[in-house]
Amino acid sequence: MGALHAGHCSLVSQSLSENDRTVVSIFVNPSQFAPHEDLEAYPRSLDTDMETLSNFKGKKVDAIFVPKVSEMYPSGITLDVNKQRGAFVSVLGCSEQLEGAQRPQFFRGVATIVTKLLNVVTPDQIYFGQKDAQQYVVIKNLVKDLLINTKVRVLPTSREPYGLALSSRNAYLTDPAKKRAAVIYEALQNGEIYYNTHSQSMRVKSSEIIERIMSIFNKADFEFEMEYLAVSHPESLEDLEYVEPGVGAIVSTAIRVPKENSTEKIRLLDNILLN
Amino acid sequence: MGALHAGHCSLVSQSLSENDRTVVSIFVNPSQFAPHEDLEAYPRSLDTDMETLSNFKGKKVDAIFVPKVSEMYPSGITLDVNKQRGAFVSVLGCSEQLEGAQRPQFFRGVATIVTKLLNVVTPDQIYFGQKDAQQYVVIKNLVKDLLINTKVRVLPTSREPYGLALSSRNAYLTDPAKKRAAVIYEALQNGEIYYNTHSQSMRVKSSEIIERIMSIFNKADFEFEMEYLAVSHPESLEDLEYVEPGVGAIVSTAIRVPKENSTEKIRLLDNILLN
Repeated sequence: MGALHAGHCSLVSQSLSENDRTVVSIFVNPSQFAPHEDLEAYPRSLDTDMETLSNFKGKKVDAIFVPKVSEMYPSGITLDVNKQRGAFVSVLGCSEQLEGAQRPQFFRGVATIVTKLLNVVTPDQIYFGQKDAQQYVVIKNLVKDLLINTKVRVLPTSREPYGLALSSRNAYLTDPAKKRAAVIYEALQNGEIYYNTHSQSMRVKSSEIIERIMSIFNKADFEFEMEYLAVSHPESLEDLEYVEPGVGAIVSTAIRVPKENSTEKIRLLDNILLN
Repeated sequence: MGALHAGHCSLVSQSLSENDRTVVSIFVNPSQFAPHEDLEAYPRSLDTDMETLSNFKGKKVDAIFVPKVSEMYPSGITLDVNKQRGAFVSVLGCSEQLEGAQRPQFFRGVATIVTKLLNVVTPDQIYFGQKDAQQYVVIKNLVKDLLINTKVRVLPTSREPYGLALSSRNAYLTDPAKKRAAVIYEALQNGEIYYNTHSQSMRVKSSEIIERIMSIFNKADFEFEMEYLAVSHPESLEDLEYVEPGVGAIVSTAIRVPKENSTEKIRLLDNILLN
């Protein structure tokens, strides 16, 4: 979706080191936004993005694919799901929970645009960040189920030195607000430590991991709203009562943190993998 | 879906004459059947089909693709839509009416399996029959919207000498029953004649075309149930009040005709194109 940050750049860098050709798509995809969401306000910085990609640590990408909305949606696209026309791809079973619970059309939009981008670019490999955990699970299932001939690569979340996961939406926050939001990763890590010390010989109760995470959140010195904090199966995203060593889990959360001097809140995501 | 008849063979023959390589897929696709429909009873004749395709008027096809259900549905498939998991493709706007009104899951199943088959085979051209008019409209929209790199070819409906459109489901009917069912095409042709004689200089009211078609059906000497008889836009399948010369229409119908010595009825489709 553009507004490139170091997280995106780590994906590009990995692709440049592993493939003969690298194509970057930049497209703010309307169909993954609901009518009340921030499609218009979503950060766009195409000139800066193109500069970043054309002089990339001595290498450059081979193509930047910046299609028009009308090219990606030949039958047109409206944000009102009930009025939409044309082909849409749903990935049932892993799209309805977590992000999907708050944003019912979101992963249909993601799966649809990724299918189209894959059909145009036909890459051998596609690169996604661990940061959007549900997104890569949806896309892995999409690629598997539609028998698309590409390999889905997932790279670790890039973070600020103080721990905050990189995200285009961080641009909405001041530095002090971003530093306060570092509590998200700190809390998740506390859950990870608990799991790692208790999973040597047996499964660990999800509720106990959640408890350790919440103990950090509860000490945070600012107002936030937690949308969800979930322990999910790493492939199906089913809610787990226990985390089995060897199967593992994704522990993910969505948090609304306040903008400075504003009642507005910014929605941030983060997650960790347990193994 | 196999159970090959001369209609399928005309598609294969056309492909053999136009392409370096021809691949035929044979797959009775579960996801386009509802739980109460005839998935188990659908005619299957793989051995005969493979013989037909291996000795085809002196030529033979290059590959016959007969996948297992588990290969086409890696996340499994159940006919109960509410319990389905995995990736599905919907083509909104042209899937809900006509066949879709009676079979709400049907075109989602068709669009999903065709997307998968296209991803596996990656053909330059795909061949469909005019007979399943809504199917090719859905697939044309699918290919356009998902930016799939293939050309959709539609060939005229093959018919018995007495007019009945060829269909795998005709195998359920005796010869006398099939001959009676020829009234379907006779009726549609009566509408076509009316349109052709009245569209020289102006648009023609759909209700008048329908009236001429019904006048033949009403003279039929056997019991049948008409599910629909519609005059639709050739690309969007919207209901048309008038048919404009140059835009044209698809006039399509679904009729249930009785099996001999049985209360059971067989569902037959037919359509004509107006230009």
